[in-house]
Amino acid sequence: MNAALAELKRRLAEVHDLQQVTLAMEWDQLVMMPHGGAEVRAEQLATMNGLAHERFTDPEVGRLLEELRPFEESLDPDSDDASLVRVARRDWEKASRVPTELTAEITRVASGAQEVWAEARARSDYALFRPWLDRNLELRHRYIDCFDPEAEVYDILLDDYEPGMKTAEVRAVFDRIKPELIALAAEVASPDEPAFMRGPFPEAEQERLSRYVVEHFGANWNNFRLDRTVHPFCSSFATTDIRMTTRYSETDLHSLFGSMHECGHGLYEHGVDPALERTPLCSGVSSGLHESQSRLWENLVGRSAPFWRWLYPTFEAAFPAVMTDVTADDLYRAVNRVEPSFIRVDSDEVTYGLHVIVRFELEQELIAGTVTTADLPEAWNARYADYLGVEVPNDQVGVLQDIHWSFNGFGYFPTYQLGNVISVQIWEKLVEAVPDVDAQIEAGEFAELGAWLRSNVYALGRRFTPQETIERVTGSALDAEPYLRYLQTKYGAGVAA
Amino acid sequence: MNAALAELKRRLAEVHDLQQVTLAMEWDQLVMMPHGGAEVRAEQLATMNGLAHERFTDPEVGRLLEELRPFEESLDPDSDDASLVRVARRDWEKASRVPTELTAEITRVASGAQEVWAEARARSDYALFRPWLDRNLELRHRYIDCFDPEAEVYDILLDDYEPGMKTAEVRAVFDRIKPELIALAAEVASPDEPAFMRGPFPEAEQERLSRYVVEHFGANWNNFRLDRTVHPFCSSFATTDIRMTTRYSETDLHSLFGSMHECGHGLYEHGVDPALERTPLCSGVSSGLHESQSRLWENLVGRSAPFWRWLYPTFEAAFPAVMTDVTADDLYRAVNRVEPSFIRVDSDEVTYGLHVIVRFELEQELIAGTVTTADLPEAWNARYADYLGVEVPNDQVGVLQDIHWSFNGFGYFPTYQLGNVISVQIWEKLVEAVPDVDAQIEAGEFAELGAWLRSNVYALGRRFTPQETIERVTGSALDAEPYLRYLQTKYGAGVAA
Repeated sequence: MNAALAELKRRLAEVHDLQQVTLAMEWDQLVMMPHGGAEVRAEQLATMNGLAHERFTDPEVGRLLEELRPFEESLDPDSDDASLVRVARRDWEKASRVPTELTAEITRVASGAQEVWAEARARSDYALFRPWLDRNLELRHRYIDCFDPEAEVYDILLDDYEPGMKTAEVRAVFDRIKPELIALAAEVASPDEPAFMRGPFPEAEQERLSRYVVEHFGANWNNFRLDRTVHPFCSSFATTDIRMTTRYSETDLHSLFGSMHECGHGLYEHGVDPALERTPLCSGVSSGLHESQSRLWENLVGRSAPFWRWLYPTFEAAFPAVMTDVTADDLYRAVNRVEPSFIRVDSDEVTYGLHVIVRFELEQELIAGTVTTADLPEAWNARYADYLGVEVPNDQVGVLQDIHWSFNGFGYFPTYQLGNVISVQIWEKLVEAVPDVDAQIEAGEFAELGAWLRSNVYALGRRFTPQETIERVTGSALDAEPYLRYLQTKYGAGVAA
Repeated sequence: MNAALAELKRRLAEVHDLQQVTLAMEWDQLVMMPHGGAEVRAEQLATMNGLAHERFTDPEVGRLLEELRPFEESLDPDSDDASLVRVARRDWEKASRVPTELTAEITRVASGAQEVWAEARARSDYALFRPWLDRNLELRHRYIDCFDPEAEVYDILLDDYEPGMKTAEVRAVFDRIKPELIALAAEVASPDEPAFMRGPFPEAEQERLSRYVVEHFGANWNNFRLDRTVHPFCSSFATTDIRMTTRYSETDLHSLFGSMHECGHGLYEHGVDPALERTPLCSGVSSGLHESQSRLWENLVGRSAPFWRWLYPTFEAAFPAVMTDVTADDLYRAVNRVEPSFIRVDSDEVTYGLHVIVRFELEQELIAGTVTTADLPEAWNARYADYLGVEVPNDQVGVLQDIHWSFNGFGYFPTYQLGNVISVQIWEKLVEAVPDVDAQIEAGEFAELGAWLRSNVYALGRRFTPQETIERVTGSALDAEPYLRYLQTKYGAGVAA
């Protein structure tokens, strides 16, 4: 039995290495690679992905998993070995259902579609993108056909990002949230942006500030990097090798909030139990849980009043020309200003969820065929008018704004809002355990906060399902109430410091 | 037959992708990776190397190569397909002789030995490094035992860097060179370094200057990067994705000469016929040929009088404080000053070859056992006294100075000096084809020079052996005379502009 387990671990470690190296090559492509390298890099990535899939779905892996069933059942289900076999079996059964050719075709078309999407967005030309969206949808249906039917077709897509989560659970939460957000946004929206929020904020100072803040959050430069990209993201190639990226613009503070957001993702990956290194358990458990941590550090910490009281003198020293006659309270209010807009990634805490809900609903309708790609821009714009009260002026800032449908990421969007919901569920438990967390933040002390998250959330890695993980951390299932309470408290009576 | 060829190409492309990705991960480790990532990165690299070796030495590859023998014989040997099958067979037969476990063990021990070497060098403590050197030598003998006996044991080591080259050929050339260099160095050595050569040269200006020069040489930023590292190197992951590195010190001009050197390597890789992309033919043909190109751009161009007449005004504008009362001719003489020293990488064109010859001789004696690792420092110092006329004060600047023996790179050193020899053989042909090359360089025009090298040398890739490549380009075999003529002309009567 131990020989079978050792052989399984050896094979899984090899596959994990291939996957991590692939992530590193993708990071390199986006952050470092000279443009001319793109064509060959695509081939290299296809080879890596194909090999990882081939090695993982090797029938011998399935045989070992079968042989290890009695051993697994003899173990405490919480043990590392039981978790490893359980999670690997689940992954193997999913991966084995999808033919290598289909995976390769999805990747290939997605690659072409992303290029066309970028051009279509730049020209606000939805018609250019539409045939590629049709191809992506057709391939997504072929993917769906690889699996046994679920209660809802969308369950199969959601499962790739939030394993085990059902569309009905998400819908119940979103249906609870939607009218509350619509009402709150209408109540507290404030269209007047203070002039100091447009800077100019010199880039070098912004970078220094981002580094200063994420260092305090726990990003040590022996294990983290912070680079610049067009679209900020975070990637990790080991718990000890975390790559954050952000973007800089002299006229706004995206770099700072982007850095805090990506740092949250990075701290999650960095905090996974090192005993899980080079196993399939070694990463955050789902997109939703991951987003809960990026949003926790970006919003619950980084847009809080104590945080801005701590950062204020440093911020003022970084941008003295802009910060004449601006108080800590002014800044706090300004970074929490609510205003319905067209663009998800620029939106505030109150309206963000509505952007996601629009996409969640449209994705289900696209997959069901009740909305066609021909109708999509109109359906998009109608829903923005309904939920956010804004008239979308063109497809560039409308249906073409997000990259996700171009890379065939149907099922991804809802996890953004699940992240917001979960972040507050976790935060409420954290406040019980660290009652003076606000005072610590105001003193620039983030160690106890980070340590609690690490030992209660991050260390678990993928040992348990997202739902099990939420249950273990919070003692309850997915629940919209803490999130709604948080928004009401922070925004209901107007933002107060 | 076409099906067999297509299948062979598919498999070779996959192996090539794995190897290029491995190079990219090594570049990342040296240039970008946070230190903490080293442990897991070592595992990832071991997985990648192991997999590339396993896939390449798959018996099915051997069977395809056998099946394709009649097809290969039916083709023009110069054709791409014939070259592909011929070179792949040679590689396959070599790789198949070495057990995967031995390759892995060599890599593992080399990795440990490199760490110990770095510490031993820092502390000038040869005794610390010696057991690792013994292990490396023992493993190198096990490697040698995988192959049929050659006329000289060292042939087997040399073959890894200079395929097909024999120790006797190298020895003949080096024996011709050695007394000439010793005599010339004694004649023209000049111990007085002009004060302006110690700067200070601000790093930002040095970087701008390096970029300016390599851009003129043909390094376009759509396909090249230039980053900083501790030990400069160049790596390529595709003909379209070239990564150069250099290092900066305010008190010398290493960054500029290092950049020109690595640019030579990069231009070679960039100039390989794109039709060879993702095949085993897609790289420079050997370490010696590669070095011929780095040295050609660094020395034959970058230390030439017309080059310095061209660069002088830009150089002066970059470092105005240092350059008061310094003429172009002063600069040219200063960057060509000859002085026997301890350190190979800092040495001038005249004495460089003697550093290499010391190592070439000692390597053969170590492998033969006529010098033991116990005797090595003494043997090293004696030879430096003999050939270079210098007393080595300690092992840090003596036997511990180079990394090569720590990574088990026995056989590598001679290719450095072969590069110098070959560079001038090629340069003489180039001057026949481009008679006004000096005038072009003085005008800052490098396009015709680069194009000639590209079409006559770089484009060939690995189609032919190093010797065949030299023959095709120069019409003669390896030959020390052009190199000796060049040194005599440039240095014999004292350096003259």
